[in-house]
Amino acid sequence: MNRQTLVENIRRKKSFLCVGLDTDPLKIPAHIANGPDPIFNFNRAIIDATAPYCVAYKPNLAFYESFGAAGWDALERTIAYIKTNYPDQFIIADAKRGDIGNTSKLYARSFFEHLDVDAITVAPYMGEDSVTPFLGYPEKWVILLALTSNKGSHDFQFIRDEQGTPLFETVIRKSSQWAGDDEMMYVVGATQGSMFADIRRVAPRSFLLVPGVGAQGGSLEEVVKYGMISDCGLLVNSSRGIIYASNGEDFATRAGEEASKLRDQMAALLDSHLG
Amino acid sequence: MNRQTLVENIRRKKSFLCVGLDTDPLKIPAHIANGPDPIFNFNRAIIDATAPYCVAYKPNLAFYESFGAAGWDALERTIAYIKTNYPDQFIIADAKRGDIGNTSKLYARSFFEHLDVDAITVAPYMGEDSVTPFLGYPEKWVILLALTSNKGSHDFQFIRDEQGTPLFETVIRKSSQWAGDDEMMYVVGATQGSMFADIRRVAPRSFLLVPGVGAQGGSLEEVVKYGMISDCGLLVNSSRGIIYASNGEDFATRAGEEASKLRDQMAALLDSHLG
Repeated sequence: MNRQTLVENIRRKKSFLCVGLDTDPLKIPAHIANGPDPIFNFNRAIIDATAPYCVAYKPNLAFYESFGAAGWDALERTIAYIKTNYPDQFIIADAKRGDIGNTSKLYARSFFEHLDVDAITVAPYMGEDSVTPFLGYPEKWVILLALTSNKGSHDFQFIRDEQGTPLFETVIRKSSQWAGDDEMMYVVGATQGSMFADIRRVAPRSFLLVPGVGAQGGSLEEVVKYGMISDCGLLVNSSRGIIYASNGEDFATRAGEEASKLRDQMAALLDSHLG
Repeated sequence: MNRQTLVENIRRKKSFLCVGLDTDPLKIPAHIANGPDPIFNFNRAIIDATAPYCVAYKPNLAFYESFGAAGWDALERTIAYIKTNYPDQFIIADAKRGDIGNTSKLYARSFFEHLDVDAITVAPYMGEDSVTPFLGYPEKWVILLALTSNKGSHDFQFIRDEQGTPLFETVIRKSSQWAGDDEMMYVVGATQGSMFADIRRVAPRSFLLVPGVGAQGGSLEEVVKYGMISDCGLLVNSSRGIIYASNGEDFATRAGEEASKLRDQMAALLDSHLG
């Protein structure tokens, strides 16, 4: 999906919500967990209930890999289900991959050709030749980790170089020379609202994927205040707050309600910021 | 596998060779590629031919993931084959994972419980809580990316902080507070032989996984000169130079010969350095 289509979807649906499909069989309702094909059936119900309110889905690969081949199979069918039934959804493989060039090329092939998702999250530590193999696929995106929302983000991402520039800013500055704003986004954690002002100085036009709203904390208003640009430029993710809103038989209805609430907040914020 | 057993295996086999199982169906011999179950059958033949000469195997996940569920299945059977037939081999999942705490925990479960490998490579960018979920499994190891051998390693890993310390050294220093030398190793690229002296100043007793010998360049003598310690402390990987030594019907024999040559060099170096 290209940037123009993504932005059109955001304007039409009045939502920049991404639903994280972090499907954990220990947390899903018993009547699904004990039935056949639990991961896929849970995902399908969540997707059907939330699709009107979001513009993106983000399965985190860890949850699927933890079931080996069977988990990959459920992931493949989940992605195919979204693509068939909701082709306007932007699909992000939250995989945080990154390896030497010829190996990253294989990851790119598996995510962009085999799974055919729109975007993959990539870790920056190994530098340019670990990232560029993911570029050059038409309408596909790299979402590079810049500033994450976890406690450990303070271990390395804030280290200042001899000029006083923190590492996460250097990651954005350098990587913006590798690709344009139409094929690279950044992961920027939301627990640090005012940091978005710093991010916008180095990434004025980039889309930002914001993981930390909902169960991980973080204020939607703050993110929008400092982070929103003229074509929105934000995808805000919520996982647990939506998909585990209930673990009873009403889980899908409740997930839809939570997604709808977030969409209403987003609609108001889009109206007041973009007019 | 604990450190003592790993070192005993190195001494007994006079080898610190790790064979990288980067199995690419486009590069394997036609008679295997066109037959049934090509990835597993190729791996099995390579393993049978090289096992006498190495102490470790390192499948890179990218190669298996590029075939989705079928690739994961071949990986699972490859690991089971090694564990059943060559239980003295140290198995490294070269996955370069790393995510927020509860997600890394799932990756740890899938690699240490489901696949039951001895070690996993982990990317450091997200900091402590992305790494610690992999720790605390008895006889299991984290191998943290410190200094990689690719060109892009220069983009971020050498950035000096305000005290002049390069990032890869800070990664080693900080992470050595999270785990001891008996459950954390470091990836250190071999194309920069003299860098091993710097590494040994910050990681005097750590095992180092050295990816860059063979097709990626790098001199075994240099690595040993600057990097070997009293219980060896090195695992040197070769992938393409061994597994693609021939793409004819003699591929396994030729792989065994290349592994045997490297083992002979390693035996001589172990003799002269450890006595």
